[in-house]
Amino acid sequence: MGRWQPNARGRLAEAALELYGERGYEQTTVAEIAKRAGLTERTFFRHYADKREVLFSGAVDLEGLFARAVAEAPESAAPLDAVACGFGPVSEMFADRRDFARRRQAVIMAHDNLRERELIKLAALSGAIAEALRIRRVGEPAASLAAEAGVAVFKVGFERWIAESERRGMAEILRESLAELRSVAASG
Amino acid sequence: MGRWQPNARGRLAEAALELYGERGYEQTTVAEIAKRAGLTERTFFRHYADKREVLFSGAVDLEGLFARAVAEAPESAAPLDAVACGFGPVSEMFADRRDFARRRQAVIMAHDNLRERELIKLAALSGAIAEALRIRRVGEPAASLAAEAGVAVFKVGFERWIAESERRGMAEILRESLAELRSVAASG
Repeated sequence: MGRWQPNARGRLAEAALELYGERGYEQTTVAEIAKRAGLTERTFFRHYADKREVLFSGAVDLEGLFARAVAEAPESAAPLDAVACGFGPVSEMFADRRDFARRRQAVIMAHDNLRERELIKLAALSGAIAEALRIRRVGEPAASLAAEAGVAVFKVGFERWIAESERRGMAEILRESLAELRSVAASG
Repeated sequence: MGRWQPNARGRLAEAALELYGERGYEQTTVAEIAKRAGLTERTFFRHYADKREVLFSGAVDLEGLFARAVAEAPESAAPLDAVACGFGPVSEMFADRRDFARRRQAVIMAHDNLRERELIKLAALSGAIAEALRIRRVGEPAASLAAEAGVAVFKVGFERWIAESERRGMAEILRESLAELRSVAASG
């Protein structure tokens, strides 16, 4: 107890994902996660509110990182270019988490309530990006549409990035997906 | 019981929305909804599985109508143009439901679990549109991106359409939102 545990947070997340994969999310208890990580339940609760939060704690970092990058985009950047400024830092954040992201996605897709939570997080991300754009004096509906388009690129790109056969980095895939969105929107 | 009730479905939906607005969604029972509509609980359950379904039964119609319009778009239509072919029939479907849609939105925004359900329905709509595009031999990620972009236009346009001060029809607003999305995507 109380002792400093090197990377307790990461070890707990890793243990949780292992157990969700082996036994199923519903069947796994916090006690089992802590035991697998070689830590106590008390340590678990210092890092996560519950076993669901292990899957979603990254979403708050993602939202903050993304919205900040949009806010700090060059003043001259068009709305969707400002949104695209978020793709670089977000790709860096995920760079060494591809395997974790794959296993996480498998758990989420298998549970309706986790999928709903994931959609809520993406809607919140879109809302935060739209707000960052409005602060840049982008009007409506341009701000909301650019934010939704950016999140669509992120969502579709993310799914490609975690595909089993995919080897390219997230930044490259997001760049390509953005170009594809622009092309889809242009042909009218 | 058993007697034919003229527009029982619509009367039940109207009564439910009245009560959700007056007493709150959580506090309203199916018995109260049926009573307000001058119908029996048994009639309620012939039309809706529960009080939540009153709010979401339209989503299935919406998805079918939208996906069919995409499937039946002219063969030469580019992906996002094919998606935009859904806006006309969808606008017609909603034409005389603006007041209902406004009150429904107020209930949904006030309850996290209803908001999650709404996001699930929008994700399913996007999935159905992407599938209709793939059947038209649109590749990935273009199909998913065009579907997400179309749903973004619908979502943002829908929110404008139900704004208190808005008088224009949904079709006009969706046309304008689509043009705005194209403009946002073009400036890169």
